Formats: sequence, structure tokens, C-alpha cells
Amino acid sequence: MKNKPNKLKYKQLGISTQKDNVVYLRQDSDVCISEGFEALTRVRVSTANTSIVADLNVVTSDILGLDEIGLSNKAADKLNLEDGDLLKVTHLEPIESLMHLRAKIYNQELDYEAYQSIITDIIKGEYSNIQVAAFVIACAGNRMSIHEISNLTKAMTCSGVQLKWNSEMVMDKHCIGGLPGNRTTPIVVSIVSAFGLTMPKTSSRAITSSAGTVDTMEVITNVSLSPEQIKNVVEKDGGCFVWGDAARLSPADDILIRVEKALDIDSEGQLIASVLSKKAAAGSTHVVIDMPVGETAKVRNMETARLLSSHIETVGQEIGLQMKVIITDGCQPVGNGIGPVLEAVDILKILRGEPEAAKDLKERAILIAGQLIELSGKVKLGEGSSIALEILDSGKAYQKFKAICLSQGRFTEPVLAKFSHEVYSEAEGTLIRIDNRKIAKLAKLSGAPEFNGAGILLNVHVGNTITKGQLLFTIYSGAEGELKYALGYLKKHTDILTIL
Amino acid sequence: MKNKPNKLKYKQLGISTQKDNVVYLRQDSDVCISEGFEALTRVRVSTANTSIVADLNVVTSDILGLDEIGLSNKAADKLNLEDGDLLKVTHLEPIESLMHLRAKIYNQELDYEAYQSIITDIIKGEYSNIQVAAFVIACAGNRMSIHEISNLTKAMTCSGVQLKWNSEMVMDKHCIGGLPGNRTTPIVVSIVSAFGLTMPKTSSRAITSSAGTVDTMEVITNVSLSPEQIKNVVEKDGGCFVWGDAARLSPADDILIRVEKALDIDSEGQLIASVLSKKAAAGSTHVVIDMPVGETAKVRNMETARLLSSHIETVGQEIGLQMKVIITDGCQPVGNGIGPVLEAVDILKILRGEPEAAKDLKERAILIAGQLIELSGKVKLGEGSSIALEILDSGKAYQKFKAICLSQGRFTEPVLAKFSHEVYSEAEGTLIRIDNRKIAKLAKLSGAPEFNGAGILLNVHVGNTITKGQLLFTIYSGAEGELKYALGYLKKHTDILTIL
Repeated sequence: MKNKPNKLKYKQLGISTQKDNVVYLRQDSDVCISEGFEALTRVRVSTANTSIVADLNVVTSDILGLDEIGLSNKAADKLNLEDGDLLKVTHLEPIESLMHLRAKIYNQELDYEAYQSIITDIIKGEYSNIQVAAFVIACAGNRMSIHEISNLTKAMTCSGVQLKWNSEMVMDKHCIGGLPGNRTTPIVVSIVSAFGLTMPKTSSRAITSSAGTVDTMEVITNVSLSPEQIKNVVEKDGGCFVWGDAARLSPADDILIRVEKALDIDSEGQLIASVLSKKAAAGSTHVVIDMPVGETAKVRNMETARLLSSHIETVGQEIGLQMKVIITDGCQPVGNGIGPVLEAVDILKILRGEPEAAKDLKERAILIAGQLIELSGKVKLGEGSSIALEILDSGKAYQKFKAICLSQGRFTEPVLAKFSHEVYSEAEGTLIRIDNRKIAKLAKLSGAPEFNGAGILLNVHVGNTITKGQLLFTIYSGAEGELKYALGYLKKHTDILTIL
Repeated sequence: MKNKPNKLKYKQLGISTQKDNVVYLRQDSDVCISEGFEALTRVRVSTANTSIVADLNVVTSDILGLDEIGLSNKAADKLNLEDGDLLKVTHLEPIESLMHLRAKIYNQELDYEAYQSIITDIIKGEYSNIQVAAFVIACAGNRMSIHEISNLTKAMTCSGVQLKWNSEMVMDKHCIGGLPGNRTTPIVVSIVSAFGLTMPKTSSRAITSSAGTVDTMEVITNVSLSPEQIKNVVEKDGGCFVWGDAARLSPADDILIRVEKALDIDSEGQLIASVLSKKAAAGSTHVVIDMPVGETAKVRNMETARLLSSHIETVGQEIGLQMKVIITDGCQPVGNGIGPVLEAVDILKILRGEPEAAKDLKERAILIAGQLIELSGKVKLGEGSSIALEILDSGKAYQKFKAICLSQGRFTEPVLAKFSHEVYSEAEGTLIRIDNRKIAKLAKLSGAPEFNGAGILLNVHVGNTITKGQLLFTIYSGAEGELKYALGYLKKHTDILTIL
């Protein structure tokens, strides 16, 4: 043998397994035989400098040579490999934190150190999917005390980057389980920064929805800024609207959330730890949470909402955040537009004080901005909303918005999609329900958020009296094909709007 | 395009992923683009006649052509594919039983139908590893009522093959968490069948231990029999010792147990359902469970043992089995030999009534056989053991044993391994402890059960007075290399035997 035993040459196979690390070895290779590996053992793959843990797939054909080793694309990226690089494969050492995971499965209460060791191992990639799933489920179904949720939140906060700001008071907001069109963030940031507070807002893209705050703000300005650029914008303008992903805040969350998605569950402890760890890691000190409640929203009834908001406030206090949860109406979309460009149009109309601006979105933004201003302690309780309204109506919020956009690199007016289809009522009566999930699905089928001009423009709201032939909404799309998909879905789902 | 969209040609890639089904598609294939698949979505792969669910891996190189599709080796076997066969790939329909899984995660009690639908979907391969793990953990940590354990047991029993016998009374035994060398089964079957009862015993190979009953019996006779052959043996001789795996009894168990292994947990509900569903599916009506208790056994203390045995008996009753659990001493290995051939030697010596036969193994076999005979109701309570002893001492059990072996195809005398190493005491005093796990590990390192002659022959038992230089045990091995591995382990672990 030319290589020392157990040194293998990397060969790019070009197999993408999403986030799972997979290593490919020949069944008849010296390593497989001498080390006694079997398919799907988890092994450690090391370069001279670094290593990852990967699932072993055994190759029984000649897509690999006897002295070669393959890796899934992302695993190869992590090790920064080129063809021919030498790698070592070894058995996995025992994972110490599994002891704590077992204790949790057997209903024991875990302390901070235990959660920290589990979260650290999960981020390092030591846990298999089975082990991550076991952790999520052992913590689901109200199996965590409030104190444990605080410990998990702290562990997740410390597990990644933690931002620091040159300000004692750092404001933040979050909406639990977004409602279509509920794009208050850009308006709130503009009002709160114009008031003089620091609000360096990091947001996310749509995960399963038709638009995230980042997708919407990208229509108007640049959102992918370096930490240095973000710092400059915030020092100059007091606020920003940027994409938070690059910051690697609370990185365990992405891994844990995959399990919840695969099962379509939302566990309370995980939800609270996810939201609050990201706020704490972003350096925030004062946080307002918007919790929409409605039968097609994430939180479906007032009882759940009251309990959840009380738990969020308790955990917030335990980890040192000034918190306020406000329960809002989640029975229908907010604003008129659903989709990045359409939502950007809504935001600009409100900031510019245009008469046809969406009243519900404006009121909600005022409420949240007002609560944040009150939370700062700089005004009397009860005065926040009127101060926020004054800042908005005076045009100061719009000036601040424009200033931040220009500091972030550009200010672009939104442009609607080319293709559209108007949907008219075939019934008459009162609009009693809009299904948030189905209208969001319709917007996605029309092409949002990938095609930013696509989406839905609503002309009606719950409670409106509807006449036969009245315009209900317009579907915008960048391509005729997608418009067809959306219309197909519309035909099959006649309960998106309920008129009685 | 020559093929209809979404029809792809199978190409063998030769990648073994153990039990996970994986499908490989080119990123730029028409199917990936038009169906919007992303890496690691789970999809359905269909031939004209059948289909499987598989994880999608996306290929970014030319190991596959644009109109080709690859599958992991076992997935291809399941679909019985040859190069060029046409396959269709479609999105996965929603899995209905996940609704019940979510209910269980949220601590609701599930009924029989719910467990049945979950187990059915798991066996069909509809669940991802994450979903299977979620089910196991949602049921672990005493989260199942006794009634739920009965429902799960029934669902698992009905999920695979169920054997039927021409006898109203079918005897069976099981040992919870085997103890090294505790090879009572062949002796018990011989005694019980010689008494005139039907005992068609299916056993398993070693999973993590140094020998299973099947590994041991294979030294002496054939154990891989067809259902037809088994039936003939049992009709002729009343009993058998065969490998149960081929029978596909309670097939969900293998899938669930992977999760428990990955986490090194043993959940009570799963353990009971696993054991009793296999007994019920094997057509057994009367079952004695041997439960060894000791600090290095699976069940570590009497409190756990009493609770577990009471739960096993209750579930047994609920599913219609006549049950008896006997708690036995699990503080040390049973018999002298550890390893297939060495255990076969122990068994033959007892059956032949040789004076140096292992007393502890003989007593334990008598106890279990006696309990089974009593459970049949054919003798008075308290008489079972003496009747069993009489059958053994009279040579009738040995005649029965030999007859069954010959009916199964051969009777071969065991042959010890060529290489051996004797280990002598360096201390003097009383032998107070033998670590079951470590002595089993030593036997495995010597080559058992793969090399059937390998293993450990113990010369001492707990309680013996040991003098300096006394022979403690002999390590047998088929190759000098493996003997070296075993000796290396021995040097590092001085607490396998504790002499004080």
C-alpha cells in the first residue's frame, strides 16, 4: 500500500444530501475491512486540521476506487476539500451528552450545564437525526418546566455568535407564527429609530410562507450586509432591516426545527427557546412579541395564547430581557398585499401617509411601536401609541426609513408582476372568514417569494358586505404557467374566502 | 424527450445505506425541475406493480444521466430492479397516522386502531428515521399506560406473519436481557417436549452479545429451516430449535429497536411489546419469562424487576397469554462456556448427565422447564421441577434433543478453537464480582460468535475462594490476531473479575 492504512484520497462524487453528512467508502477497502465498519455506522472523517461526523454509506461498485473516499457535497464543503486530499476515517468516540438526553427521556429535569452540553454536541454535528429527534420529542408535550426552558434558551443563546451594540438599550420585536401580509417590522423600526432608540433588526426569509421581512425589504434595499456594514448603518441611523442568517445567531435552532417540521409539531419549550435565544444573541434588551390568535393562525385560541405569553414573559425575565407580549387578532391577513412587492407597496403607502394605505397594518405597527417606546421607560405608560402615530404622521418615520435604506445601499420603488387575474365574487353576503393558510398557499403558487412581484392583492376584509360580481382579490404572477397553477388551486379550494 | 416526463431509467450505483431507502436523481433532470424536489425530500418511487418511499439525494455530477435514476442497494432489491427498468417518482401523499403520533407526543392515550395505523405505516416504510424516533421517544419514559402497552403489543403481533400449530397449548420461554452463557433454551425445549408438550422454539442470533441461542445450536444442528420443514419437525418431535428471523414475526420490532440502540435506551413499553408480540405471533399460548437481575445485567435491581414482571404478566393476560415471570440471579455468567461452541459443550454435558456439567445452568434449566410444565396445568403446582429433573436425569431429554437435531438435519459434536490462552489469578481472596458486560466483550474480541469455537471458558464462579496462580479462565480463539485483541482488552480492564 502506498498510503498508510486508513488514509484515503478524496474523490468528488457530487451527491447532495442536504444537511446530512454522508461519507462513501468501498466495501472492500482496507479501512472498511480492518476497522470493521458496517453501512450506516457513524464515523469521524478528519483532515490534518479539522473533522466532521458523518453517516457511512458503503459503495459496492467502482464509482470509487479502493483507496478513495467520497463525501456528500456539504460535508466536503465543511472540510474544504479538493480531489486527492488525504482523509482519515475513525470510529466515533462516545457522545458524553447522550447521558443527559437519556435522563430527559426518563423525565428528569435538566440543569443549564446539561442543556449546554447537548446543544454544543448538536451544533458540532455529533448527533444523528435519530438523536436530535429524540431530544426534541423528549422536550415536547409540556415536558419542560419554565426553568428548563430558560436553561435551554440560555444554552442556545451562547451556542453561536452574540452581537454587541454601543447602546445600553437595544429594541427588538418578533411575531409568533406570521400572518400573511403582517409586515409591521419595517414601519416599527422606522418609528422607533426616529424616536431615538436603537433597533438593529435582523429578520429572516420566508421558510414556508409567501414572504419574509427580508424578502419584502430586498425589493426596496440591500439586506445582505456584512457585520461591519450593519454596525455602520446602526451607528448612523439607529436602526436597520437586514438578513440575520449570515450572523449565525442561535445555530442549534435550524437543526431542531427540521424535526418539528418533519412531524408538523410546535413544542412550547422549543418555540420559546428559539425566539428568545435569537433575540438575546442579537444583543436585544427590550422585546415586544406580537402574537396573532385565530383559527387559521399558529396560536388558535385565547387560552393557549394567554398561557404561552405568560411563559414567554417569565422566561424572558429569567434570561434578563425586558419583555411584553401583545395578543392580536389573527383571524385574517393584515394589509392588502401578500407577497414581497405587494407588501412593500403597503409599507410605503403607510410611511408616506397615502389615503388608501391599509388601516389594519398601520394600526398594528403603531401598537407595536408604541409598546416598544413605552417599554424603553422614556415615556409614560399609555402614551406610546400616540407618540408613535405622531412620528409616523409627521413623516419622520418615512425620512428615517429612506435614510436607513440609502445607508444600506439603495432605495428602489417596487414593481408589480406583469401577469394578473382578478377574482370576483359569485356569492353575496358578509365575508366571515379568510383562511390564512390557504391564501398564503395561493400566493406561493403564484410564484411568491421566489418571484418577488407575485402574490395576492386583497380588496376585501372580514366583516365586509360583499355583492355579487365584486372584486375580491387580484393574483399577480411573473409567468402564465404559475398563474395557471394558482387558478387550478383556487378552483379546487372554494373555502379560501367564506361569504355567508 | 423520448420517455414520458417523470419516467426514469434505473441505473445501479452500488451504494449501500443499510436499511434506509435512498433515491438518487440528477439536479438538472426534468423530474427534479418540474416537480420542484429538493434534496432530502421523501418521495415515492414506483414500478408498474409496487412502490417504496425513499429519501431523495440530488446528484450534481455525471455518475447518473439526466434520464436516469439510482437507488440504494436494498431499495433496488425491494423493487426487484434491473438496469434500464423504468421508474416513476412522485411526491409523498400525507401520512394519516402522523395525526396519532402527534397526539401521543402531546401526551394523549392512544387506542388500538391508532397504534395499528402507526405500526402499519412504519412497516410499510412510510416513516422517516425522525418520525420513527419520535414515536419511540413519545412512548418512552413511562409515557404508556399498561392498556396502551397491550394495544401496541396487539398491533405489533398482527403486523407480520402469525404462526399456527396443531396444538391447543403451545409452550414458549424468553430471557430478558441475556446473561453470558445462559443457554437454557435447548435443555428446556428438550425436557418440555419429552414431557409431551408442544414447544416450537424460534430463537435469534447474537445482536450485541457473544452468542445467541441460534449461534450455539448451529454448532450442533441446522437452524435455518423453511416453515414447512419446521412444521414437520414439530409434528414428529413436539419441539424444535430454529432461527426465527426468516419468519418475519412482529417486523416492526427491528425498526423500533434501531432507535433504542442509537440512544442506548430500553423503554419499558417497547420492551414488553417487543417480547410479547413475538411470542403471540409465534402462536405461543403459555410463556415463562426468565428475568435475571444483577448490577451488570439488563435489569439492575429488584424494585425494577418486580414492577416490570408485574407489567409483563398484566399485558400477557390482556393479550390472552398464560404467563409466568421468574426473577433469577443475574450477578454473573451462567454455565462455564461463553461463545457458541463452549456453550454447546455445556449443554451436551448437562443433557448427557456428565459429572462435571455446569450445576448453575442445569438448575436454571430445570427451574424454567418445571415452571412451563406447571403452567400447562398437567401437574400439581410445586411438582414441575422434580418432574423436569427426572426427565433430564433419565436421559429422555437427551434422546429428545438428539431426535430433534436429527430431524433438523444433523447432529454434530462441537469442536473447540485451536488457539487458547489461560489466565491465572495474581491475587488471592474471594471472587466477589464478574462483570457480565466486560466478560462478554472479551468473548467477542476473541472472535465469538462469528468464529464459533472462540470464547471464554470460566473455571471460577462468584463466591469461590481463589488462590494465587489459580486458573481463572481460558480464552479460545480461531486466530492469533484475535487472541491478541482479547489480551489487549484484558490488560486494560483489570475489573472483569474482582477478587477481594
